[in-house]
Amino acid sequence: MTASLEASLEASLGAPLAEPLFERAAIIGLGLIGSSLAHVCRRKGLARVIAANDLSPEVRVRAKELGLADVVADTIEMAVADADLVILCVPVGAMNAAAAAMGPHLREGAIVSDVGSVKASVLAALTQHIKPGIHLIPAHPVAGTEQSGPDAGFATLFLDRWCIVTPPESADAAAVAKLIAFWKGAGANVEIMSPAHHDLVLAITSHVPHLIAYNIVGTAADLEAVTQSEVIKFSAGGFRDFTRIAASDPTMWRDVFLNNKDAVLEMLGRFNEDLTALQRMIRNADGQGLFDLFTRTRTIRRSIIAEGQETPAPDFGRRKP
Amino acid sequence: MTASLEASLEASLGAPLAEPLFERAAIIGLGLIGSSLAHVCRRKGLARVIAANDLSPEVRVRAKELGLADVVADTIEMAVADADLVILCVPVGAMNAAAAAMGPHLREGAIVSDVGSVKASVLAALTQHIKPGIHLIPAHPVAGTEQSGPDAGFATLFLDRWCIVTPPESADAAAVAKLIAFWKGAGANVEIMSPAHHDLVLAITSHVPHLIAYNIVGTAADLEAVTQSEVIKFSAGGFRDFTRIAASDPTMWRDVFLNNKDAVLEMLGRFNEDLTALQRMIRNADGQGLFDLFTRTRTIRRSIIAEGQETPAPDFGRRKP
Repeated sequence: MTASLEASLEASLGAPLAEPLFERAAIIGLGLIGSSLAHVCRRKGLARVIAANDLSPEVRVRAKELGLADVVADTIEMAVADADLVILCVPVGAMNAAAAAMGPHLREGAIVSDVGSVKASVLAALTQHIKPGIHLIPAHPVAGTEQSGPDAGFATLFLDRWCIVTPPESADAAAVAKLIAFWKGAGANVEIMSPAHHDLVLAITSHVPHLIAYNIVGTAADLEAVTQSEVIKFSAGGFRDFTRIAASDPTMWRDVFLNNKDAVLEMLGRFNEDLTALQRMIRNADGQGLFDLFTRTRTIRRSIIAEGQETPAPDFGRRKP
Repeated sequence: MTASLEASLEASLGAPLAEPLFERAAIIGLGLIGSSLAHVCRRKGLARVIAANDLSPEVRVRAKELGLADVVADTIEMAVADADLVILCVPVGAMNAAAAAMGPHLREGAIVSDVGSVKASVLAALTQHIKPGIHLIPAHPVAGTEQSGPDAGFATLFLDRWCIVTPPESADAAAVAKLIAFWKGAGANVEIMSPAHHDLVLAITSHVPHLIAYNIVGTAADLEAVTQSEVIKFSAGGFRDFTRIAASDPTMWRDVFLNNKDAVLEMLGRFNEDLTALQRMIRNADGQGLFDLFTRTRTIRRSIIAEGQETPAPDFGRRKP
């Protein structure tokens, strides 16, 4: 991002709130999402005190150096004590252990949420550790980059992106409204969805795209007829686009596939059926069939740009610096 | 691209040549590649006169308005008359007709080249229309954006990208050297390859990536369980990346698949085998297998960035303007 673009995005975040929404927000896990959340919490004054914890001592040291939070606690218990908002920003597979560790230490009336890319399994894992009297409201901000760790975060990550909130049926309406206000304060749009529908939607808009990106990068690396050096040199023909999402955090993505198995396999089945049909069109030299598909797909990008979810600049506006 | 980035790229093109390489370059077809070639020819003084033609009267009118060439000829015959360099920038499926039309009008000793994304079938198509005494040397600059037409071109498109030159065995060494000097003058790096190997390399670095991008965008558009509006809203989870190359020119890409059938089907077979293995890992909850692949793919992007073929900026440096 260039400096001027960055400044204009930063300005779009708007003024800090007159009064914080929460007294103490605890951010658990300081990767890309957790550190971005810490930045925007401070920038927008969403919480009076920002507490944080990460399982890794190195990350905690780095978080202190970066000044990400008011308190970087050495344990998850210390981070959540007295917090009226707790957001778990750990990989989906680590949610259960984090919830078990913090469960007994949560304050009555606190809101507990998360940012996991899978919602049904996370809800099931968290439910067993969260006592009655605490508001469990899972959520998922659909935003990110291919970078990871506490240095990767920035305050505008969620700006104009969608955050999907998946409250259990029994959820307290006021608590849900407060969590929605929090995400809107962070610059996001909010949509309410059931966990199961979330998992199906994300399977096609995020999980299967990542899977096929990882797959083609793996295929290209393993060829004998084409060297890795050739793949790298001539990657500007399209391949390099796929390497971006195939450079995402391996732990996070392993957990996504293990925890959204059914929806991913279902969407992958549809992808495979369609690919077989396309393969047959090529084999049979069905030029009209290919042309029709390639024309139809073009219009989808136009809609994504029109809805503000993508840059209109050719080639994503990228060039070598 | 921001204005300052554009200015710095433009400066990287360097000073115009002291003496043009060619007296008259004829550019046939004024889409993204043809119009970019016209821009850089003028900017770098690669030819004393730039002549051009496009089959479409609307494109010819627009080319005149844009001042793309010194002469925008009404027919291909008029464009190539007296040219010592002719570059066909038409879709691969239109090469045969273009070569047939211009063949009898080519000047003795001229170099005839092209920019097609497939080389074996193009060489075969051109050979039958090019008389002895004319130097036929196919080439393929591996560069582009998802945009098309005479307005899409820009002078720095080929800067630091690779141009693959595939001379026939009988090619005149001096003519090959002159075409290489032309592409280097346009800012590109040059690699020599056989047409068959080119087609295999591009099948994995460009053609199959486009095919699976077109395919997943089609799959997502056709789902009943997830609406098109949901696909668009939540596309920032990864899907939107694929829509860029799935927005590329349908005619160009139809022709690529029809003309590189064998290599595309071979590489697609490898992709499918690997995807089946990945699908099985998910079904069997093989977390280690997934983690290992996702770690390996991460390093390939680093190499592409290190080799100057990709921006190091997170998320391609894109954000809404």
